[in-house]
Amino acid sequence: MLVKKYVFVLNKTSMRCLSTAMPSEKWKLKSLPLNIQNPVPSDIEISRGQKPKNIAKLAEEIGLTEDEYSLYGKRKAKVALSVLERFQDRKNGKYVVVTAITPTPFGEGKSTTLLGLVQALSSQLNKNAFATLRQPSQGPTFGIKGGAAGGGYAQVIPMEDMNLHLTGDIHAITAANNLLAAQLDARIFHEATQNDKNLYNRLVPKIKGVRKFSKIQLRRLERLCINKTDPNELNEEEQAKFARLNIDVNQITWNRVLDINDRYLRQITIGESPTEKGIIRKTGFTISVASEIMAILALAKDRIDFKARLSRMIVSFDKSGKPVTADDLGMTGALMALLLDTIEPTLLQTIEGSPVFVHAGPFANIAHGSNSIIADKIALKLVGENGFVVTECGFSSDIGMEKFFNIKCRASGDIPDAVVLVTTIRALKMHGGGPKVSPGAPLPTEYAQENLELVKQGCQNLKRHINNVTKYGIPVVVAINHITNDTDAEINLVITESRKSGAFDAVVSKHWAQGGGGSVDLAEAVVDACEEPKNFKYLYDLNLPLDEKVSVIAKEMYGAGKVTFSYKALEKLRKYEEQGFGNFPICMAKTPLSLTGDPSIKGAPEGFNLDINDASISAGAEFIVVLVGEITRMPGLPTRPAIYDIDVDPKTGEIEGLF
Amino acid sequence: MLVKKYVFVLNKTSMRCLSTAMPSEKWKLKSLPLNIQNPVPSDIEISRGQKPKNIAKLAEEIGLTEDEYSLYGKRKAKVALSVLERFQDRKNGKYVVVTAITPTPFGEGKSTTLLGLVQALSSQLNKNAFATLRQPSQGPTFGIKGGAAGGGYAQVIPMEDMNLHLTGDIHAITAANNLLAAQLDARIFHEATQNDKNLYNRLVPKIKGVRKFSKIQLRRLERLCINKTDPNELNEEEQAKFARLNIDVNQITWNRVLDINDRYLRQITIGESPTEKGIIRKTGFTISVASEIMAILALAKDRIDFKARLSRMIVSFDKSGKPVTADDLGMTGALMALLLDTIEPTLLQTIEGSPVFVHAGPFANIAHGSNSIIADKIALKLVGENGFVVTECGFSSDIGMEKFFNIKCRASGDIPDAVVLVTTIRALKMHGGGPKVSPGAPLPTEYAQENLELVKQGCQNLKRHINNVTKYGIPVVVAINHITNDTDAEINLVITESRKSGAFDAVVSKHWAQGGGGSVDLAEAVVDACEEPKNFKYLYDLNLPLDEKVSVIAKEMYGAGKVTFSYKALEKLRKYEEQGFGNFPICMAKTPLSLTGDPSIKGAPEGFNLDINDASISAGAEFIVVLVGEITRMPGLPTRPAIYDIDVDPKTGEIEGLF
Repeated sequence: MLVKKYVFVLNKTSMRCLSTAMPSEKWKLKSLPLNIQNPVPSDIEISRGQKPKNIAKLAEEIGLTEDEYSLYGKRKAKVALSVLERFQDRKNGKYVVVTAITPTPFGEGKSTTLLGLVQALSSQLNKNAFATLRQPSQGPTFGIKGGAAGGGYAQVIPMEDMNLHLTGDIHAITAANNLLAAQLDARIFHEATQNDKNLYNRLVPKIKGVRKFSKIQLRRLERLCINKTDPNELNEEEQAKFARLNIDVNQITWNRVLDINDRYLRQITIGESPTEKGIIRKTGFTISVASEIMAILALAKDRIDFKARLSRMIVSFDKSGKPVTADDLGMTGALMALLLDTIEPTLLQTIEGSPVFVHAGPFANIAHGSNSIIADKIALKLVGENGFVVTECGFSSDIGMEKFFNIKCRASGDIPDAVVLVTTIRALKMHGGGPKVSPGAPLPTEYAQENLELVKQGCQNLKRHINNVTKYGIPVVVAINHITNDTDAEINLVITESRKSGAFDAVVSKHWAQGGGGSVDLAEAVVDACEEPKNFKYLYDLNLPLDEKVSVIAKEMYGAGKVTFSYKALEKLRKYEEQGFGNFPICMAKTPLSLTGDPSIKGAPEGFNLDINDASISAGAEFIVVLVGEITRMPGLPTRPAIYDIDVDPKTGEIEGLF
Repeated sequence: MLVKKYVFVLNKTSMRCLSTAMPSEKWKLKSLPLNIQNPVPSDIEISRGQKPKNIAKLAEEIGLTEDEYSLYGKRKAKVALSVLERFQDRKNGKYVVVTAITPTPFGEGKSTTLLGLVQALSSQLNKNAFATLRQPSQGPTFGIKGGAAGGGYAQVIPMEDMNLHLTGDIHAITAANNLLAAQLDARIFHEATQNDKNLYNRLVPKIKGVRKFSKIQLRRLERLCINKTDPNELNEEEQAKFARLNIDVNQITWNRVLDINDRYLRQITIGESPTEKGIIRKTGFTISVASEIMAILALAKDRIDFKARLSRMIVSFDKSGKPVTADDLGMTGALMALLLDTIEPTLLQTIEGSPVFVHAGPFANIAHGSNSIIADKIALKLVGENGFVVTECGFSSDIGMEKFFNIKCRASGDIPDAVVLVTTIRALKMHGGGPKVSPGAPLPTEYAQENLELVKQGCQNLKRHINNVTKYGIPVVVAINHITNDTDAEINLVITESRKSGAFDAVVSKHWAQGGGGSVDLAEAVVDACEEPKNFKYLYDLNLPLDEKVSVIAKEMYGAGKVTFSYKALEKLRKYEEQGFGNFPICMAKTPLSLTGDPSIKGAPEGFNLDINDASISAGAEFIVVLVGEITRMPGLPTRPAIYDIDVDPKTGEIEGLF
C-alpha cells in the first residue's frame, strides 16, 4: 500500500499541504527577449539595454516562497538554506560542469559559454536551467582584466552589481579574515608583555564577582585535556598552558587580505608604532578571494559544517610545532557572526531572464576555484528532475576540473552528468605552434586567417583534455566558442578530431554574438550527453600518501613523467601526515597556461619533470596546497588601469566604463 | 489669484496628481508595544525579544512609495534621494540635536536619550518623529566598547544589523579608500621605473589605432592649463607635466583603512616584496570611519556635491609643495562607482517601531562626528511641518556640538530648533571632585550614595555646556539620564541649577528602563522648546585667519585663556591659507573627557593654555583639522576582547554575546 506523507508549511496568510515526494515542476519562466545588434555593442551597453525582471518575480517563477529569499534592492536576492529542507525529497536535476582546454592569456570563454548554454536550455529548449558561478573579485575589475559577468549576449545582469560589492560576501570575508589576523597579533603582543598570572586573570576575569570560562574557552580546555570547568581550580601549570598559545612568529601562515590589486602590500613589516614596543614582524596582504575562508564558504554544506571548518583553520604553528587554530584564538563565534549572511547564495539573472546563483569565489590556484556547494545543491533541487544546473570550474581541465572532482565533488557528493570542454580555434592554433599571443599586442595574422595545419596540430592539447575528462567516466561535449574569423573548415576539423578523441559530441556555439539562440546545438548535445550512462570514479584514493597523490595528478592529468619535490615541500607533507592530515585531497597550484609547470610550453608535452616547490595546509577547507612555481596572491595595478575609464553620471547614477 | 501648480508622478500602475505645496501628514504609524521587565535584561535579549515590523511596512507608514526604497532583507532598507525632489515644497519638521556635558569614560547616554526621546514623541505624544544616527564602526564591536545601537528599552533594532555590516556602506568606503591608496603607490612605482615618454604612452595608449584622453585626463589637462585635447599634439614638456605627478613620498597624507581594531597596522613599512624593486615607504592603517571619504559622505548634499568633493581630496603634496588630488590620480569616477549606494541612508526602526536613519559615521575627533546631512534632510521632509527629527553630535558640546554647528549646519543650511544636553548625576559628581572613574574598576561609593555637595560642585561643568549652547541662540533642554541610584534631591538640585544657568528646562528621563514611556517629560519639554524664538549665529566668521578661528573656539567653547601653536602647526595653517583653503571651518581634534586638552582635568577650568600640536587638511570634506595632543586613529584589541563571548547557534543562525 502506498502511504503518502505530508508536511505542513505555515505562512502568514495561508496553510498549504505539500507532498514530501515533491514532483519537479516546469517553471513558468518569462524569458527576456534579446535585441541583437551587429556589430555587438560593449558589455555594459548590452547589460544596460536589457531591463532585468524584478528579482522577486524571478524568485517566485523558480518556486521560492516569500520567506525563502531576502531582497537586496530590486535586482539581487539572497536565498535561504531552508529551501533544501523543503525540497529534500525532490530529485536533483542534471548537473553539468564547464571546463576548458589550456587557454591563451585571454581565456577561452568558459563563463560566456556557460551562460549561453543556460540561456539556450531555458529560452530555446524550454527547460528549467540554472547557472551557478563564482563571485568575481573586485580587484581586477579596476585593473586590466575587467569584470567577470560573461560578455556579449551571454551575460549576468546587471553586470555592475555582479562586479561591484554584490551582496557584500567578499567584504564580510575580508572583515572576518582580518579580525582573525588582528586577534592573532594582539595575542602575540599580550603574551609577550604579560606574565602567566596576569594573562590568565585577564583572559578569565571576575565580572560582578563571578569568574567563568566562555564556551570557546571550554573547548580549548578540552583540546588541552584539562578536565576542569571552574577557572579557580586550574593550577599554575594548567593556567599557563591555557593562557599561552606560544605562537612561533616564524611559522605564522595567516595573512591579512584586501579585495584590491595592491602590490605594495605583498610584503610589509607591521607593528612599527612605538605602542607595539618593538614587536615587529614581516607579513603580507593577499587578495581576499585567496582567503581560506573563501574556500570554506565554497565547500561548506551547511552552517554547522561552515562553523566547524572555520574553527579548525590553522593560523600558525606554536613553538613546539603544533597547529594554532582560529578556535584557540577564541574566534570561531565572532567569525560566524561576521559571516552569517555569506552562506546564502545570491540570485541574479542572465540577460535572457534565467536564474543565476553567484556564490563564493575561491582562487583557482591556492584554492579549488569553484562556486559553492550550497548554491549547486539548492539549484539542483529548484530545477528538479528534468532540469539542468550548469556550473564552472576555474582554469582548464588539468587544474580546475581535477580539483572540481577530487575536492568539491568529494565534499558535496554531487557528481556531474556531463562535462562541457570549451575551446577556441585561436587557442588550438597557439598550441599547434602559432606565434605567441599576448594581451595588449595585436594578434598575429595566423589567428585571423584559415590555417588548418596549426589547428590540427593544436588538437593534441584538446585531445589530452578530452582524455582527462573521460578518465572520470563522464561524457564530454566539446564546445567551440565561435570567434568572428573562424572558418567552417577549421570548425569541422575540430569536430572530427574531438569525436575521434572520444568526445561524446563537438559543436560550435555562437552565444557571444547571438545569446541563447546561438547555443541551441550545444544545449541539445548537452541534453543528450546527460542521458548517457556514466561510470564515475575519483582520480586517486584519499588513503594514498600525500606525495603519491600529487604524482598521480601530475602523471594522469598533466602528462608528467616524473615529479621532483623540494626538500621543504616534502618535509611539510610529512609533517601534515604526522599531524593527521594525510587523508586530505590535494589542491594543486600550477599555471593554467600550460599542461606543464612552465607557462611558455604549449601543446601536449609528455614525460616532463614537474617541480614541486612548497606546500601549505588549509585545515578548514580540508586540502593540502601543493605549489608548482611561484603564485602571485596579490595582483598589481598597471600604469593605466581601468580606473581611468570608470565614471558615474552624478545626475542619473549610471556607471560607465566597466567592461 | 492663487494658481496651484501640479506635478505628475508616473509609476507602473497608476498616475497620480500631487500638489507641489504638499501638506505635511500625520503618519499612521503602528507602535510596537514594549514588554518591560525589571531588572532590565541584556541589550541583545531586549532586541531579540521584539519582532521588528517588516521594513517595507514602516517605509510605507512614513509616506515612501515603493520606488523610493530598496529592501536589504526584511529589516533594513535604503531610501532614495528622489524623495527630496518629491517633497521639495513641503515644510521641514522641527530639528533637534542631542549633545552632552563632559562625559565619564562610560559615556553619558546620548544615543539612548535620543532614542528614548524619539520613542516618546512617537508612541506617547503621537507625533511624527525620526531619529538620525551615525553608523557605528565594526571595530569596537569586537573590542571592549561593544555595539552602538542604544541600550535597554531605547534601542535601534535589530541591534546585530546595526552593529555588523548594516547595508555595507563602511565596506564600500574601505574599498574606495584603499583603491585610492593602491593607485597612489602604483603610480609612484610606475613613475619611478619609466621615462617620460613611456609613461605618457602608457597613460594614453593607442587602442585599435585611436589615441585619446579619458574625461578625467582632460580635467587634469585643464588644471595644468594645457589647452589641448589631442594626445598627439602635446610637446615633450607638456607630456611630462601631464604624466608625472611627482609625488613627494614624505608628504603623503593618505592612509589605508580597515574597520577593525588592528593595532599592528598603526605604523608599517610597505613595498618590501622584490617585485617593488626597493621602493619601500612607511605608512599606516587607520580605522575606516576615520577616512576622509566618511566625512564627505556625511557632509555631501547630493551626488553632484559628493563627486565634486571626492575629486578634491588631497592624497599628498608634490615635490614643489602643490596638492595632489584623487582626480589627479584618475580616481574620481572609480571612487563614485564603488560608493554609489552609500549615498542612500539606511532605514531601521526603534524598539517601539518609529523610524531611524543610520547614515555615515565620521570620527568625532579628526572629523566632525555627525551623521549625514542627506539623512537629516530626507527625515525633515518626511516628518513634515509638525514632526520632529532628532539627531546627535559626537562627544560633548565643546567638541561635538561646536563642530555640528560650525561645520555640518554651515554645509547643510539646516539649523536646529532646540538642543538636548544630556547629563548624569554620576558625571556631575566626577566633575564636582568625586574619585576617578574608570571602566573595569568597581565604581567608588560616592557614586552609589546621595552626595549633594559633589553634584552641586559638578554643576559648574553643566553650566559651561549650557552657556556653550546659548551662545548659538538656541534653547537648551537638560536631560538627566536616570541611573538607578540617583536620588530625588540630587535630581531636583540639577533641575534648579540648570534653570538658573539659562536652560529652557531640565527634566529627568528614564528611557533605559522604561522606553518612550520613561521619556514623556523630556519629549514635552523639547516640544515646548522648539516653539521658542531662536536667534541663531555661528561662532566665528569663515573669513577670519585660521589660527584666529581656532582661538575663538578655544576661548568661547573650552574656556581657554591662551592658545599656543607649535611651529609645525602654524606653518601648515599658513600653507593652507596660501593654497586658498583659508576660508575652511576648523575641525578640532581634542579629548572629550575634559574641557581642556588634558583628559584628567575635570570640572570647568578657565584661563588655561591650550597647546596645538599639528594640523592637516581635508580638502574634500572642506575643513582644517587642528590637533590638540595625540589622536589614536587605530584602536587595539585587549587581552580578552568581546570576541570571546560572541557566538552563533549554527542551527538557528542566532547571534549571541553582542552587547
